[in-house]
Amino acid sequence: MSFSPLIRQLIDALRILPGVGQKTAQRMALQLLERDRSGGLRLSQALATAMQGVGYCQQCRTLSEEALCNLCSDTRRDDNLLCVVEGPLDVYAVEQTGYRGRYFVLKGHLSPLDGLGPEAIGIPELLQRIEAGQFAEIILATNPTVEGEATAHYIAQSLQGKGMALTRIAHGVPLGGELELVDGGTLAHALAGRRPMLG
Amino acid sequence: MSFSPLIRQLIDALRILPGVGQKTAQRMALQLLERDRSGGLRLSQALATAMQGVGYCQQCRTLSEEALCNLCSDTRRDDNLLCVVEGPLDVYAVEQTGYRGRYFVLKGHLSPLDGLGPEAIGIPELLQRIEAGQFAEIILATNPTVEGEATAHYIAQSLQGKGMALTRIAHGVPLGGELELVDGGTLAHALAGRRPMLG
Ligand SMILES: [Zn+2]
Ligand SMILES: [Zn+2]
Repeated sequence: MSFSPLIRQLIDALRILPGVGQKTAQRMALQLLERDRSGGLRLSQALATAMQGVGYCQQCRTLSEEALCNLCSDTRRDDNLLCVVEGPLDVYAVEQTGYRGRYFVLKGHLSPLDGLGPEAIGIPELLQRIEAGQFAEIILATNPTVEGEATAHYIAQSLQGKGMALTRIAHGVPLGGELELVDGGTLAHALAGRRPMLG
Repeated sequence: MSFSPLIRQLIDALRILPGVGQKTAQRMALQLLERDRSGGLRLSQALATAMQGVGYCQQCRTLSEEALCNLCSDTRRDDNLLCVVEGPLDVYAVEQTGYRGRYFVLKGHLSPLDGLGPEAIGIPELLQRIEAGQFAEIILATNPTVEGEATAHYIAQSLQGKGMALTRIAHGVPLGGELELVDGGTLAHALAGRRPMLG
């Protein structure tokens, strides 16, 4: 037994969504058909508009349908700070911290085994952006993974001697966790990076 | 900070999918935009086609774009058996068991508090379907919930004395579980419905 062809096509298409397997896709397809066809049509329209209309900000390379995204076009932000991240979701995460400087969004991280060198992830554009600006500090906020570290090191080396501070986000124990659940590497970083209390 | 308008619209639209909250919708939207725009366009197309093209089988009332679904039009199935379920996903579940009779798909279950009486869930059409057929047995496979039980009872009473067997799927302990994790009501049903072993 199987679903009718149109339903089967919809189930297959839903499986391209991250985290959606066969069972979830079935439930999604049938629930839309049974309970919310107008919502399904709205989603269809939103997908088509976004897939065709969203490009990249010319300045920070985050996803945006405007030539300049709303972060780059905001004149109240701090032009002395540039935060370099691996992707658009990271911009969102850093914004939540209250950071109000500028951003540059790489296309992921260096990954020589996959053939992804500096050009593939946008490092030449990053260097151009930095030349064109007047940044006092470049914050390297790539992911705390082996690849993210290597990418941060590569960028730091490319910028050495250009007169701006190069900083890396701190590694340490996450807030609210229990020490015994923290992995050894993280704990070692947290110890090495210990700071004086009471000022 | 926020995403650009088109991305925001896409995130909002994705949240109509069952089980998809704000964070999941963000990840879905950005992943499609960053990595699979052609997949996103295929999903857009599949949604539009299905929402507009899928109707209901005239005979069993399951979702189908044909007047007769592939289960109803299959002449090799057993015309003596009719299995009554609450929705199209249940048809799929029952098919997995090897059942090869006919189906009738209600629109959910009786729910007087929500104003859903026999007409709202398609019981008149079920009775017509039964009149038009020559069923020896009607298997009531509504959900093992209070509402599903009430719906099965209502249908059984409506069909009493019409000469066909009326059966209800068995309640009991699910296969592969541990007895201590089974709730008391289920275990009581399993005890009451105990059957002789060794033939
Ligand atoms: Zn920008
Ligand atoms: Zn049918």
